[in-house]
Amino acid sequence: MALTRVKRPMLADLDLSTGKRTRLHRLLYKYGPANGTLMFLPIDQGLEHGPRDFFPNPPSKDPDFQLRLAKEGNFSGIVFQIGIAKKYMNKYAGTVPLVLKLNGKTEIPPDKAPISPCIATVEDAVRLGADAVGYTLYVGSPLQADDFEQFRKVREDADRFDMPIIVWAYPRGEAIEAKGGRDSLYAVDYAARVANELGADIVKINVPKSNPDKDASAPKPYNTLQPSPAEAVRMVVESAGRALVLFSGGEMLGEGDLIQKARIAMDGGATGLIFGRNVWQRPFDEALTLSREIHEMLKDYGA
Amino acid sequence: MALTRVKRPMLADLDLSTGKRTRLHRLLYKYGPANGTLMFLPIDQGLEHGPRDFFPNPPSKDPDFQLRLAKEGNFSGIVFQIGIAKKYMNKYAGTVPLVLKLNGKTEIPPDKAPISPCIATVEDAVRLGADAVGYTLYVGSPLQADDFEQFRKVREDADRFDMPIIVWAYPRGEAIEAKGGRDSLYAVDYAARVANELGADIVKINVPKSNPDKDASAPKPYNTLQPSPAEAVRMVVESAGRALVLFSGGEMLGEGDLIQKARIAMDGGATGLIFGRNVWQRPFDEALTLSREIHEMLKDYGA
Amino acid sequence: MALTRVKRPMLADLDLSTGKRTRLHRLLYKYGPANGTLMFLPIDQGLEHGPRDFFPNPPSKDPDFQLRLAKEGNFSGIVFQIGIAKKYMNKYAGTVPLVLKLNGKTEIPPDKAPISPCIATVEDAVRLGADAVGYTLYVGSPLQADDFEQFRKVREDADRFDMPIIVWAYPRGEAIEAKGGRDSLYAVDYAARVANELGADIVKINVPKSNPDKDASAPKPYNTLQPSPAEAVRMVVESAGRALVLFSGGEMLGEGDLIQKARIAMDGGATGLIFGRNVWQRPFDEALTLSREIHEMLKDYGA
Amino acid sequence: MALTRVKRPMLADLDLSTGKRTRLHRLLYKYGPANGTLMFLPIDQGLEHGPRDFFPNPPSKDPDFQLRLAKEGNFSGIVFQIGIAKKYMNKYAGTVPLVLKLNGKTEIPPDKAPISPCIATVEDAVRLGADAVGYTLYVGSPLQADDFEQFRKVREDADRFDMPIIVWAYPRGEAIEAKGGRDSLYAVDYAARVANELGADIVKINVPKSNPDKDASAPKPYNTLQPSPAEAVRMVVESAGRALVLFSGGEMLGEGDLIQKARIAMDGGATGLIFGRNVWQRPFDEALTLSREIHEMLKDYGA
Amino acid sequence: MALTRVKRPMLADLDLSTGKRTRLHRLLYKYGPANGTLMFLPIDQGLEHGPRDFFPNPPSKDPDFQLRLAKEGNFSGIVFQIGIAKKYMNKYAGTVPLVLKLNGKTEIPPDKAPISPCIATVEDAVRLGADAVGYTLYVGSPLQADDFEQFRKVREDADRFDMPIIVWAYPRGEAIEAKGGRDSLYAVDYAARVANELGADIVKINVPKSNPDKDASAPKPYNTLQPSPAEAVRMVVESAGRALVLFSGGEMLGEGDLIQKARIAMDGGATGLIFGRNVWQRPFDEALTLSREIHEMLKDYGA
Repeated sequence: MALTRVKRPMLADLDLSTGKRTRLHRLLYKYGPANGTLMFLPIDQGLEHGPRDFFPNPPSKDPDFQLRLAKEGNFSGIVFQIGIAKKYMNKYAGTVPLVLKLNGKTEIPPDKAPISPCIATVEDAVRLGADAVGYTLYVGSPLQADDFEQFRKVREDADRFDMPIIVWAYPRGEAIEAKGGRDSLYAVDYAARVANELGADIVKINVPKSNPDKDASAPKPYNTLQPSPAEAVRMVVESAGRALVLFSGGEMLGEGDLIQKARIAMDGGATGLIFGRNVWQRPFDEALTLSREIHEMLKDYGA
Repeated sequence: MALTRVKRPMLADLDLSTGKRTRLHRLLYKYGPANGTLMFLPIDQGLEHGPRDFFPNPPSKDPDFQLRLAKEGNFSGIVFQIGIAKKYMNKYAGTVPLVLKLNGKTEIPPDKAPISPCIATVEDAVRLGADAVGYTLYVGSPLQADDFEQFRKVREDADRFDMPIIVWAYPRGEAIEAKGGRDSLYAVDYAARVANELGADIVKINVPKSNPDKDASAPKPYNTLQPSPAEAVRMVVESAGRALVLFSGGEMLGEGDLIQKARIAMDGGATGLIFGRNVWQRPFDEALTLSREIHEMLKDYGA
Repeated sequence: MALTRVKRPMLADLDLSTGKRTRLHRLLYKYGPANGTLMFLPIDQGLEHGPRDFFPNPPSKDPDFQLRLAKEGNFSGIVFQIGIAKKYMNKYAGTVPLVLKLNGKTEIPPDKAPISPCIATVEDAVRLGADAVGYTLYVGSPLQADDFEQFRKVREDADRFDMPIIVWAYPRGEAIEAKGGRDSLYAVDYAARVANELGADIVKINVPKSNPDKDASAPKPYNTLQPSPAEAVRMVVESAGRALVLFSGGEMLGEGDLIQKARIAMDGGATGLIFGRNVWQRPFDEALTLSREIHEMLKDYGA
Repeated sequence: MALTRVKRPMLADLDLSTGKRTRLHRLLYKYGPANGTLMFLPIDQGLEHGPRDFFPNPPSKDPDFQLRLAKEGNFSGIVFQIGIAKKYMNKYAGTVPLVLKLNGKTEIPPDKAPISPCIATVEDAVRLGADAVGYTLYVGSPLQADDFEQFRKVREDADRFDMPIIVWAYPRGEAIEAKGGRDSLYAVDYAARVANELGADIVKINVPKSNPDKDASAPKPYNTLQPSPAEAVRMVVESAGRALVLFSGGEMLGEGDLIQKARIAMDGGATGLIFGRNVWQRPFDEALTLSREIHEMLKDYGA
Repeated sequence: MALTRVKRPMLADLDLSTGKRTRLHRLLYKYGPANGTLMFLPIDQGLEHGPRDFFPNPPSKDPDFQLRLAKEGNFSGIVFQIGIAKKYMNKYAGTVPLVLKLNGKTEIPPDKAPISPCIATVEDAVRLGADAVGYTLYVGSPLQADDFEQFRKVREDADRFDMPIIVWAYPRGEAIEAKGGRDSLYAVDYAARVANELGADIVKINVPKSNPDKDASAPKPYNTLQPSPAEAVRMVVESAGRALVLFSGGEMLGEGDLIQKARIAMDGGATGLIFGRNVWQRPFDEALTLSREIHEMLKDYGA
């Protein structure tokens, strides 16, 4: 069955405060594709996974690599942690919009009850001229209560400055692994709704993956659903409601597969893409070419 | 034995501050039935249970569905979490009163020692023009000390702005399961009193359920009591004292059963009803019809 | 051996601040027996034990019952939690002095490492016109460090407003159970001293009970002591030092036994009594009669 | 081998702020021996051990006993917890200097991971006219991180008012018991250094004790050292650096032994002594006589 | 393969605030080698390991020993904890720059989930005229979330005063031990990046050590890498990015080995050295001679 393209939420319909609307307008219509779609370059893997993610493309170890790529590839913005933002952005100030990631952790300790501590504040973001802040929410973690509290404080600060919040809505921890796993439709669908309920302006999610073995342990009715990727995207976008949706690329894919994945996301109502390793783990020129292909594709989704 | 109807507390008798009385007067006499009874539409299940609660009636996934229902069905107010309130209420501002739920959690982690973290503040509620705030208190949870502290801070903030507090008084956690269970008369009766002791203006409770197997493990004299539903309602309403009582509908019931359950509650001294899934899991027109039947029934209880 | 009556501390000898002396003077000489003795009516059992304590005398479920009793029985004051104080005191304002209990908990979770969280503040007490605040300290609990910290904050607030503090000094938790138990002389004697050391103005304790089986596990020299009740009272009163002592009644006793127990307490240097269930679990008239007998008895102790 | 007497740090050489120097000058040269040595009377055992420490000398249960002793025995100061200080000092104000102990605990809960919570503040000490504050630091406790944080806050407050801090540097908890025990040279030597590193002005330590069985489990080279008491004193005094050292008496000793122990301490570079039970567990006159003998002995150490 | 010398980051290229640049300029060009390299003398081992580190050279127990050495040996600065800084620096004020270490702990409790609590503040550092603060970050510790939060607060304070932060980036705890160990390339490389991401101005790391047995348990591709020390240094310096790198000496080495190790570090892009025990565990004159040899060597690296 052919699915019709889903209309995504438009800025003017979102009852946003002047400050949030100003910043989101810049991201949506003044930088990057500038047609109401988004295309972010995240570089928080150095903290989340360590330098091992840079081995496939050694120059990527220097954040200036990603900044050049963001500028020449005309991205909507770059995502940095505070230390990198403070040390590397100055030269690109005003040229590449900044999304300051506020929390993060290393992959070293076990992941049964994850929480991502705040290593920067909304005030840091304001001071650095950022247009949005990023927050990783580990939906369903046994430490969820602490995470929700921490997010509330970030949300209150963001509301004080009318700074948009992008929520990395990641189902994680032993409890979700016992109910179908982090990539299940149940998990991603729930995470999208949670971000909407807690006050995300934008939510970053992954495309759910079917895994017949694990899906059976998800709650009803998810344990019996077998949606196609396109259907799954539509479901989770709908659950995100009036939070704009970004889909991530996850681990390295072939170029064609990536564009194909991106189209499914955009057709399903996403506002944009946030591709990290899939882009910057390639040599600069190749990464630039890919960025341009994504741009080209996004032209079909202007609004 | 026929039971006489119980007189519920009247606003004028409650020694309320001007701010609380103003807001409660609006909810009781200016919106909804407007005859001193209450009829709320809660929509916090998207956070508490995830999108799975929307499958029986897919349009209900969009909070605008419930807002339209609250408006056309003439409810006393709608209950939202902060993210939904900020993104969806604007169009209905002043038309549908808002109860801002201040805390919430997902169902993913285990429930042995629950606590519901605050994801919004009383100031958020004031800013949004809400007429009350909602707080879920897990009475008897092993984390009860943290919960009581958290509630105290909410109560202090509410007192600062004279904002009424509705307490979802839910017995939960492994300790109450070992003493008769969350739905036992012991549990609900205790929860109602706790809400009154801690400073609730309104308390939302469920109708206790007899369960001979589990009731035996409740403390004396509860382990030997076998009240009818009507008697049980009277007991717990009495324990709530001068906190106005709302009864919830719980899981989906037939229409007749629901009205019957509501009458037992109102006859027993409840001030109103808070029916969520029982209403919005039906198609819009059916839900509207049911809402009108509830209205019709509530006319018998004006005061 | 006949014991001589112990002289209790007099207000004028206690080097009190003006604010504390004013409030304690009111409690000691303007309300209740008004002869320098105290007679409080506590009603925090609805929170601590739940509504089951009201079954022996159903009208006692309504806090107005205790308020009427406090007024007609001419008590020195009534002890309420914040929710009850705010909803029921207004009509009796100025007639019945209020002791606002600041912390409390339910009996539902296990009691191995108890702590009683604060559900009200000294500012609440000031705002309500209370003459003292109450605090339950679980001496010897594994959570004692948190409890002491919490108490310090309450004590600092109380000092800021010169509000007297009554400490419910209760030995509790698995550690004291392993050293003779909560009612042992070791436990109560230690608790009385702790209250004095931490800054109580008044301390509420129980009369220690001999229990040969358990006493042996108390530290030296307590493991070998066998004091009479009168001797035990004298010891713990001495340990309380310049903190005025209130003895509680504990569970329901016969009338004669209660008066007898009260005399032993007063002879031993107590300043007063705090009888709850022993009074309000009786029908109103019976309770009133008992209150008058206590008054009559206390006339022997004016000073 | 005869050891030469160790020169202790002199006030003028310590680069102290005016406030600290003023207060320490009073303690060293205006009260007690008044020759640059110190002789404190601590009475915090009522909290730390309970009333059982008063059984050998019943009058000692009343803090006025120790105050009289401190005054007539001409001590440099008395050490009290807040409750006792507030209730008993007034009459001796200006006559007996006060060291306000800021933290404390009971002996009831297990001691594997001890921390001593703050029950008073530096502001309390200032308000009471104290000349120093006392803090018990459980060096090496599994809760050491919390303890160090708590101490830092006390130290910051003390710096704000330039109030001297006396650190009771006590190695405690299961970790030190596994490495030679609390009284080992390793433990005491380390504790003395820690107090100096963290910012103590004065440190109270015990004389290390050899225990061949346990010493073997201390880290190198301590596991092979067998210093005499005099040598051990010199080592730990050196580790305390520019923190003045007080040695405690520990449990009850014979008079001669005590004076002997004190001489070893003073010869080894201590600034003074802090003898509690060894003094006040004796009848008043005997205690006074002993105090005078200590005075006599301290005359040899004026500077 | 001969490796070319790596160019290290220059102060002028780091987009530093005026305050940070002023302080780092002093450390790099006005004290010590004064040619853009750094040579620090740390003395925090008295807290971290206890006095046992002073046994090889007893005079080193007195912090004045290290201060004289820092002055006569012309070090760029000395690293002290607050207690030592406050008691010993005054005489050397302005002569020897101070790096105030803000956190620390003892070695007594187990090291499975380490965190180093703050015992001083950035304000303390400002008040003492320090030119930088030091912070030990236990990368990968199970308590990493608390550590990151604590570091964020320090970083915010440092930003408020534009005080440079030196991060002791130490992989520690049971999780890293299970993934190759604290000295593995994976661990040190990750730690260097983390310091850069979190906002270190300078990072202190150790030279990674190969350990074939343990390296196999490191994540890919580290489990198969066998870099020479010089290659390993280059990798971790690159991961530290724009954070200047200091290499430590670790445990006592021969003089020649130490200079050799230092050259590898400087050739690999380090900005300087931080040698503690390797220097001050030698007799004063020997230590001074070694310091001069290091100076001599650093002359080759001026810039």
